[in-house]
Amino acid sequence: MEDKKVYILGGYQTDFARNWARENKHIAAMMREAYQGSVEITKIEPGDIDAAFVGNFAGELYCMQGHLSAFFVDFDPRFVGVPTIRFENACASSAVAALSAMAYIQAGIYDLVCLIGVEQMKTVDAARGGDYLGTAAWYEQECTGIEFPFPKLFGKLGDEYDKRYGLDNNYLARIAEINYANAKNNPNAQTRNWFMNLEHANTCGKYNTTLSGRIKVTDCSQITDGAICLYLASERYAAKYADHRGLDIRDIPRMLGWGHTTAHIEFARKVADSAGDDYVLPVTRKAITDAYKRAGIKDCWDLDVIETHDCFTISEYMAVDHFGLTKPGDSWKAIEEGVIGMGGKLPINPSGGLIGCGHPVGATGARQLLDAYKQVTGTAGTYQVAGAKKVAMLNIGGIATTNVCFVVGTKN
Amino acid sequence: MEDKKVYILGGYQTDFARNWARENKHIAAMMREAYQGSVEITKIEPGDIDAAFVGNFAGELYCMQGHLSAFFVDFDPRFVGVPTIRFENACASSAVAALSAMAYIQAGIYDLVCLIGVEQMKTVDAARGGDYLGTAAWYEQECTGIEFPFPKLFGKLGDEYDKRYGLDNNYLARIAEINYANAKNNPNAQTRNWFMNLEHANTCGKYNTTLSGRIKVTDCSQITDGAICLYLASERYAAKYADHRGLDIRDIPRMLGWGHTTAHIEFARKVADSAGDDYVLPVTRKAITDAYKRAGIKDCWDLDVIETHDCFTISEYMAVDHFGLTKPGDSWKAIEEGVIGMGGKLPINPSGGLIGCGHPVGATGARQLLDAYKQVTGTAGTYQVAGAKKVAMLNIGGIATTNVCFVVGTKN
Repeated sequence: MEDKKVYILGGYQTDFARNWARENKHIAAMMREAYQGSVEITKIEPGDIDAAFVGNFAGELYCMQGHLSAFFVDFDPRFVGVPTIRFENACASSAVAALSAMAYIQAGIYDLVCLIGVEQMKTVDAARGGDYLGTAAWYEQECTGIEFPFPKLFGKLGDEYDKRYGLDNNYLARIAEINYANAKNNPNAQTRNWFMNLEHANTCGKYNTTLSGRIKVTDCSQITDGAICLYLASERYAAKYADHRGLDIRDIPRMLGWGHTTAHIEFARKVADSAGDDYVLPVTRKAITDAYKRAGIKDCWDLDVIETHDCFTISEYMAVDHFGLTKPGDSWKAIEEGVIGMGGKLPINPSGGLIGCGHPVGATGARQLLDAYKQVTGTAGTYQVAGAKKVAMLNIGGIATTNVCFVVGTKN
Repeated sequence: MEDKKVYILGGYQTDFARNWARENKHIAAMMREAYQGSVEITKIEPGDIDAAFVGNFAGELYCMQGHLSAFFVDFDPRFVGVPTIRFENACASSAVAALSAMAYIQAGIYDLVCLIGVEQMKTVDAARGGDYLGTAAWYEQECTGIEFPFPKLFGKLGDEYDKRYGLDNNYLARIAEINYANAKNNPNAQTRNWFMNLEHANTCGKYNTTLSGRIKVTDCSQITDGAICLYLASERYAAKYADHRGLDIRDIPRMLGWGHTTAHIEFARKVADSAGDDYVLPVTRKAITDAYKRAGIKDCWDLDVIETHDCFTISEYMAVDHFGLTKPGDSWKAIEEGVIGMGGKLPINPSGGLIGCGHPVGATGARQLLDAYKQVTGTAGTYQVAGAKKVAMLNIGGIATTNVCFVVGTKN
């Protein structure tokens, strides 16, 4: 049953540098643009769409709007009657939407699911937006009365690494530098025209500010408005899709493997749980190894690219050892040896990631999937990793509370 | 594929009369109580649970808490690592969670899904709570600056019935009376100790207040704190479950059929769309007939009970003809002839429905499913409909924007 193939048919990303509130546009306008862009790119017949899913974190708070999946019906009269669902697992919202689309397709219920990941965040000031992000953690226990709770919580992840293995902040600065540099190549990246270098990332002063402990502004992902629309399909639909376009179905990327796990929502309990474990976040590690197992790959060296959830530089630092590029605690070695940069042995975040490309929270998992699609189809343009065939993505919600990993590729 | 059986193994409902804010309890405490109650009742081994889903409308607004599915991990250490997802389709949130649990089970991905529907609403005053409900409609277009937008929008549904077929408000009052009367039999109903009769429902004065047009306070469902925890299972797990308890698997209720549709989120467009159609809400009608078709039943007379979404008396009035108890527009006849009361030919809402039992928004679909389970297993106690074998439920989100219908029964 689990072997039923699920294909990704491409899609559209909005320009993450835009500010939709400043354009006086509603979150539904952003969804509509992503949807229409996806139809132009894929030439999918809207009437073929069996169901439409939305991944969104907190439209209720940022935009005073829930029930977002219902907006599909506003985009095209052919959506009248079509089943729609909205999914929310904090920053992993659109990854769980994609997982569920896969389940409906594998159950034989739907052949073609249209999926939008979306977040509009620039409707409120940074302090209020930072407070809203706290609802992805245990707000009352971990965030009440704390300014910018998330950088502080992820700062503690850095402290835990430091305690267990030692952590040189210069490697975090290097991760920021790489992501900003990669984003320069991505025409949809939020920071593509921003100036940032290693010196700035290491500075506390007029070019950079400490938010809490080791976390500086340059260690943080962006506050971003953005939407992605993409398509997941059964083998039956993908075959028809390939046939109409003169494609070989074996060239259409598939979900080769996936992992989905949940850890304690409270950071302190999560870390207490992992005392004595090889990994600081064993539940995150399990999502990755489950994906490897289902994809039938041995380890990370079977991958050509990783798109990971660098909500903070320390999250990417964690991903390096959790994906198995190094032994636990040795992530710095992969950075030092140039493994993760463009042209390295296993580039991480050619897109620029959440730090460079941007982090519209509920859209990020879909953005990573779309970038995985682009890499393995050789359509990533200016940020293409030559010859990429297998890409893994990791989307986490909260402080690595929800963890979703996909391996995407062709010709498995 | 769609024929793979999905079983319901029962569960637990919290007392809908409670006010959890007054008890100084967090929404996670309500979820925990529902979960623990469900384990006591079903004796399910927590380690057997493959995935845990939550249906919730607006925890971010009412409780400043998102990412609710992650709280499972806090309830029992055996949830560490278990995949969890939160679903939101306004008032139909837990029905889409149940649909998706069905998909995962039919895909062979999971054998046992634990599902909590939950809403804590008494954290805010009525005006603010009413405003939050507006996020289930198109807030900016339909609700901005409007006090209690939902009664007004559903009032327009009454106006549309009146325009097309004529509508005597006395029948709406009668629906209120029936639901309050039924709730008296339900030990978990919010209004079980309230006084209400037909005279009060028809009064404007010291016992009742008009909110807007034909909608009085007694026409409205309640503002409720509540959670439901129930279990959906594959045939494989259900067989094991039956075996361990000396049950015949054929006596365990199943999802016999389902329908899921989406209409325009804006009420005006929805009604404009149905001009010339037999039904005021043809998209809602389709969810019901799809469920009938999948369940292999001819019409409503194959059912023994209906649990429907009476967020307002007019929503139940609509359900009467949309379920096919009468010709379109003739719902009043079924009320007049005593068809829908306890002891009638097809009782609606023996539980008391959303008006009598209560309406914790994101929990309602799960509450309806649990009541369907209770009716067909003969365990509804004081509100049992004798000999019930097949029950349909209709859960709607927004102004009948998301529509989910299930037919639940045994020995199909």
